Amino acid sequence: MKTLHLSLLIVILTFSVKGVSQSKTQDSTIIRSLYNTALTEGKGYYWLDHLSNEIGGRLSGSVEAEMAVKFTEEKLKELGLDKVWLQPVMVPKWTRGFKEYAYIQTGGDQKKVTDICALGGSVPTPSLGIKAEVVEVQGIEELASLGKEKLSGKIVFFNRPMDPTEIQTFVAYSEAADQRYAGAKEAAKYGAVGVLVRSLNLRMDDYPHTGSMSYGDLPANMQIPAAAISTNGANYLSSLLKLQPDLQFYYKMNCKTWDDVQSYNVIGEITGSTYPDEYIVVGGHLDSWDLADGAQDDGAGVVQSMEVLNLFKKIGYKPKHTIRAVLFMNEENGLRGGKKYAEEAKRKGEKHRFAIESDAGGFSPRGFSIDASDANFKKVQSWEPLFKPYLIHLFERGYSGADINPLKGNIDVLAGLMPDSQRYFDYHHAATDTFDAVNKRELELGAATMASLIYLFDTHGTK
Amino acid sequence: MKTLHLSLLIVILTFSVKGVSQSKTQDSTIIRSLYNTALTEGKGYYWLDHLSNEIGGRLSGSVEAEMAVKFTEEKLKELGLDKVWLQPVMVPKWTRGFKEYAYIQTGGDQKKVTDICALGGSVPTPSLGIKAEVVEVQGIEELASLGKEKLSGKIVFFNRPMDPTEIQTFVAYSEAADQRYAGAKEAAKYGAVGVLVRSLNLRMDDYPHTGSMSYGDLPANMQIPAAAISTNGANYLSSLLKLQPDLQFYYKMNCKTWDDVQSYNVIGEITGSTYPDEYIVVGGHLDSWDLADGAQDDGAGVVQSMEVLNLFKKIGYKPKHTIRAVLFMNEENGLRGGKKYAEEAKRKGEKHRFAIESDAGGFSPRGFSIDASDANFKKVQSWEPLFKPYLIHLFERGYSGADINPLKGNIDVLAGLMPDSQRYFDYHHAATDTFDAVNKRELELGAATMASLIYLFDTHGTK
Repeated sequence: MKTLHLSLLIVILTFSVKGVSQSKTQDSTIIRSLYNTALTEGKGYYWLDHLSNEIGGRLSGSVEAEMAVKFTEEKLKELGLDKVWLQPVMVPKWTRGFKEYAYIQTGGDQKKVTDICALGGSVPTPSLGIKAEVVEVQGIEELASLGKEKLSGKIVFFNRPMDPTEIQTFVAYSEAADQRYAGAKEAAKYGAVGVLVRSLNLRMDDYPHTGSMSYGDLPANMQIPAAAISTNGANYLSSLLKLQPDLQFYYKMNCKTWDDVQSYNVIGEITGSTYPDEYIVVGGHLDSWDLADGAQDDGAGVVQSMEVLNLFKKIGYKPKHTIRAVLFMNEENGLRGGKKYAEEAKRKGEKHRFAIESDAGGFSPRGFSIDASDANFKKVQSWEPLFKPYLIHLFERGYSGADINPLKGNIDVLAGLMPDSQRYFDYHHAATDTFDAVNKRELELGAATMASLIYLFDTHGTK
Repeated sequence: MKTLHLSLLIVILTFSVKGVSQSKTQDSTIIRSLYNTALTEGKGYYWLDHLSNEIGGRLSGSVEAEMAVKFTEEKLKELGLDKVWLQPVMVPKWTRGFKEYAYIQTGGDQKKVTDICALGGSVPTPSLGIKAEVVEVQGIEELASLGKEKLSGKIVFFNRPMDPTEIQTFVAYSEAADQRYAGAKEAAKYGAVGVLVRSLNLRMDDYPHTGSMSYGDLPANMQIPAAAISTNGANYLSSLLKLQPDLQFYYKMNCKTWDDVQSYNVIGEITGSTYPDEYIVVGGHLDSWDLADGAQDDGAGVVQSMEVLNLFKKIGYKPKHTIRAVLFMNEENGLRGGKKYAEEAKRKGEKHRFAIESDAGGFSPRGFSIDASDANFKKVQSWEPLFKPYLIHLFERGYSGADINPLKGNIDVLAGLMPDSQRYFDYHHAATDTFDAVNKRELELGAATMASLIYLFDTHGTK
């Protein structure tokens, strides 16, 4: 790569004080260099291998989460950044305990064992488990019409699938996720003894998908255990219910919520040459669910964020603004890291200009979802032609990412990397979210895509 | 889907004799219906399961290829098309025989066994194998400078990698493929006794990738055996050669070329209501290499082509032109099916309007590569906004597909479906090309994308 870096330097020197078309040429050259470097000298895939295969699932408060903090801090330090540090944050600690056990009982003693998993934050079942009849519903709004009469003492089975005709799978996810997040809280109000929720997955398979749920302000004695059942399991249960509406479902879960524990956001930065007190953030979240390695959610986003700094160092780019990689803790079940980072930024009066998050998997990048004023959105959109050679085409207004969203109000532009989303929910929060599901090139292209947008923002600003 | 079909019908009736904006509304509605139907009632994935897991690799002339002919003919018949038939074509038959065996000998008797595979069309080694020193080169053009003096009696090892910085991986493939296709023919002219070719794969792994090669007009007694070595194997061999340039490589291959055998293209059609004698073709190739199931190459294209007809039947669309799904035989090592189809079309004076091929894998569709006049290209390009909701954004001028290319000169527009290409060469022609590498949604989106373009062409034509 030596030759390339030299030629890059020449281009920068040649065009640094000239006009717009030269500026475009320089932009193209630097962006080309970011992509080339990612694809030939990228480190993210090897970091992800360690994070996935040597550490594994990194739920907040776990030993693995702390190992991930140490590992990424060490790797950021190896990049020779200007500053690397840990930002303390207290996080919830919830543990799954022994593997859950469940069966469907149809005849006198005909039992069909079924894979389930506790939803994150659920209370356990009593130690002998729960056995009850099942009432299938398509959503929370159906509960009121059934009422206490039909729901009291029952397990409520939320079975509304994600809509397969939504091309953007995150839309289908958000339309179905209320069942998982609030199903238990709502069903408990009608005397239900537990809830089962169809996994948020577009594929038919045997893997239950976990994810966060909340009891809101429900008193402890009304909280009922909540579990996910796989898409195949949900269809099977639904079919059996049509044949035998009074079948019984048994499940036992051993999860527990502990006191909050100390953890950290991991932060590395290259200090800006012109505006050292103005910040650009690139981030992903370090914690993951515990059923697999969290390679797609969000190991990919973590290593891509680290890679962005690696790429700038490799090509010798000196940013005007301070660029920080922030590896947030506790996105999955609390968002404490994201909130803490925003609080501290506000408290210290740190002017944030731009933040971008990668938390939609390490798949082929398609573009950006941008949360900004009209003027700033148009400015970002004007850079679209520079991304055409890299097949990046989505410049949409929309949500950025959970961890950076708390910065809103204290920042010019928020953005989310949008990778191809068709496979994402096959892996999301399930035992399938392993390293082998991530493709090296796709991961590297995502990192280069974020680095390119950050370069443009750093050089041309907005507003 | 009943409701949807009824509403579709109403839209068609309402807008059928009105103006341009209504026409656009109708187009949108029909395209939406094609995507929805593919994603909820698609059959392609199940057909691909059978083709991959019940039949397997389908090299021309094999029993599996004939099973695939029968299976797809039967499935097309079940769709209730107007006509389904087999078009006879004589195809080459080459067999791999017993698995290849190879090792690198470094010390007196230090042998490192290495996975290789014969390239398609290669002659076998002598029955005792070949053992010789190895000369590593970066390409065919290097041979002349080395000359007979350095190459005679040696195994030439072509080790130029695919360029990882090419974003469109098919470009990187075409830039490296001459080593595989013509390496043996050229090395033989300098007295080499065999060739080893680095697998055409962007990923580092242990799988050798086969593919077609040719001796051109080289006499039989000069033909030397040609094998592929995996990317990891190639790097390992290259490293060893630096330490010990006189190491020896041994390999034994048992492949054989037989007399041509009878096979078939499989064709199904819906007869056009207005122009029954004008044809639109959608196709993929039924044959595959023998090292795996050929799920991506090109089982995906076969079932997507069949799916297009299925979708038109399901939504009740009656095409103006005759629409044919053509499942071509022998793309991989002869292209006999593609040539035969074009010959027969010409001989019968069948006016072909449009052909589209899917032979780049079953990944998320990104757009089309279009081979047409300026005017026709612009017409096709004008439909781009209709594809925006489906994230289809590539409307590029370029090559269509190997099987439909022989129609050139007797057709208005040729096109190739362009799926995301980043993962494709991980599977291409290797033992990794199995059913599990194909994602159901991505496959279905590709079929709907082709069906939508065919619908637009059928309705609005070109020229």
